[in-house]
Amino acid sequence: MSWLDEFGERHGPVVGVLASSLAQVERRFSEQIESDLECVRELCGRVERYRGKMLRPSLTMLAGMAAKGDASAPATELITLAAVVEMIHVATLVHDDVLDEAEVRRQRPTISKLRGNEAAVILGDYLISSAFHLCSSLDDQRVALRIGEITTRVCEGELLQLHHRQDCELDEETYFEIIERKTASLIGIACEQGGAFSGASPAVQRDLYEFGARLGIAFQIQDDLLDLLGVERVVGKSLGKDLEKGKLTLPLIHHIAVADAGRRQQSLDLLEGLWQGDGAHETPDSSDGATLVAELTDVRHEVQAALESTGSIEYASRIAEEAVVEAKSRLASLPASSARALLEDLADAALRRDR
Amino acid sequence: MSWLDEFGERHGPVVGVLASSLAQVERRFSEQIESDLECVRELCGRVERYRGKMLRPSLTMLAGMAAKGDASAPATELITLAAVVEMIHVATLVHDDVLDEAEVRRQRPTISKLRGNEAAVILGDYLISSAFHLCSSLDDQRVALRIGEITTRVCEGELLQLHHRQDCELDEETYFEIIERKTASLIGIACEQGGAFSGASPAVQRDLYEFGARLGIAFQIQDDLLDLLGVERVVGKSLGKDLEKGKLTLPLIHHIAVADAGRRQQSLDLLEGLWQGDGAHETPDSSDGATLVAELTDVRHEVQAALESTGSIEYASRIAEEAVVEAKSRLASLPASSARALLEDLADAALRRDR
Repeated sequence: MSWLDEFGERHGPVVGVLASSLAQVERRFSEQIESDLECVRELCGRVERYRGKMLRPSLTMLAGMAAKGDASAPATELITLAAVVEMIHVATLVHDDVLDEAEVRRQRPTISKLRGNEAAVILGDYLISSAFHLCSSLDDQRVALRIGEITTRVCEGELLQLHHRQDCELDEETYFEIIERKTASLIGIACEQGGAFSGASPAVQRDLYEFGARLGIAFQIQDDLLDLLGVERVVGKSLGKDLEKGKLTLPLIHHIAVADAGRRQQSLDLLEGLWQGDGAHETPDSSDGATLVAELTDVRHEVQAALESTGSIEYASRIAEEAVVEAKSRLASLPASSARALLEDLADAALRRDR
Repeated sequence: MSWLDEFGERHGPVVGVLASSLAQVERRFSEQIESDLECVRELCGRVERYRGKMLRPSLTMLAGMAAKGDASAPATELITLAAVVEMIHVATLVHDDVLDEAEVRRQRPTISKLRGNEAAVILGDYLISSAFHLCSSLDDQRVALRIGEITTRVCEGELLQLHHRQDCELDEETYFEIIERKTASLIGIACEQGGAFSGASPAVQRDLYEFGARLGIAFQIQDDLLDLLGVERVVGKSLGKDLEKGKLTLPLIHHIAVADAGRRQQSLDLLEGLWQGDGAHETPDSSDGATLVAELTDVRHEVQAALESTGSIEYASRIAEEAVVEAKSRLASLPASSARALLEDLADAALRRDR
């Protein structure tokens, strides 16, 4: 994991343990999705590319180490749990790309783009199923119960988001309800259950959940900003998807709330224009693809200018920073350790994602 | 469950127990998918309609009763297991309708048609997740492990089927590999685990699995015949979907294998014509919808004539009958009981589905 290099100097030993544990997680992941069918193996080979920084498994293992207060190599069961969490995350990415009609992820074509939506839907199901299968192999059944509870919550968040598509009256409260469920809860559980494996008390488990959840909120806001402001070549995935699919995110919600009447109307008209003719249940005709991309690029530029006019980018960034501060404060109940220090630095890094 | 009426006369007491147990399964199902979000509740309300005969939960409970050799009311845990199995089945239906672009199921519009593919994909995920969550609440963790193994197998079957789309060289062996995984395995596990709950020996559990799996094969062949020969108004779901989506099923595979060269070429040209221009990864343009339906109706009539010319309908029906005979023979290891007798009659009923 090359992203770990950044932390190597300050956190040498724990980064070393983490890197070798992540390699084990990768093996566990690959073994679990292994199939006797050639066509399934071929498709799963493409999934490998979806694994990025392995943030969630890293958090699971670091939470496990931090709860013990040392940086010894994690137990096999913790490796399995980390693989489960990553598998669920990858499954959501595969299905998200179907929903978003995204064409690029981690600099490569998405599975839905390469192999069609049908293959992507079933592959996502295969991954969810494999994750639960693997999870059921853990000694402690309470883990599967908790993971099942949270993945259901993730789906609720996605459904709530869909329900508010193209809803320019979406308020901050509902936005946070959406991202708490769809993003923060899985990162929260990754941390909580890592701690639980090392025998953390219920109170410490709750703190670890909140650490992960706050961090997840910061990540999501940063992701939303990237979608609006980022450069596709740098970020490595399709951008402007939130706008195109009618997902209002924090900067835009703030902008609509605080802009003066004229400015607000101008922005609403801009969004209306983008969505017009794009029936909620239809995919745009592929022959219009080029026109659509050009139009979207223009709209993104106009939206960026609008957001700047009301300080909405700074506003969203500040909320993300506050979430990181809150996240780190939750680590206070853990003993000081190199793993805890790395968790703190990882939280700060959430705010430094490339645009 | 009105379909149980058919069996009331011969199997009065056990049908009575089954009917009241199915009402409990329905409640367990509804409670589990209950959400605090209004938009999720509204969508879940539509799922109720997807529940048809509740064949799988019925098999689970009857297998449980048959393994005990009596028809006393099933334990709460067996009700839960039956609800898990039904929830997984409904999830596959919701996703199947997305994959098949089906518009009608159980005489009503599908969720994908009503609310768009995005909602249907996430709703399916919500159901899978809820099923695993519920399954993890069972005392015996081995159930979740086995269910996870089988649902992964179901997805493999779907992927194998997708891999062979529009493949006119698909052979019988691969066809059976597909339906054994995608259909038979879930019905097999419904029976096996029902028996396991009542303390059936591993050998009897295997027999129950095979009973369900053979029955599932008969059901699938019958379903394939309905798709080719049925009347939409009677069957209550979109038909001709297998042909349209390039899924070759047993009658057609037999026809292509045994027809003389001229006849075979004629049939291959017919299929080629239907699929031409329908890019594997694209949905047909909606403006062509009416033309497509008319074309499909013509093709179905021509295919029906072709299948009759080679006796392929009779061939497929015979294989289904043989599967039912084989299924019933697997029940011999169970003690004679009213539950076992009803299982036998249910197996025969698989061959009497309405066209």
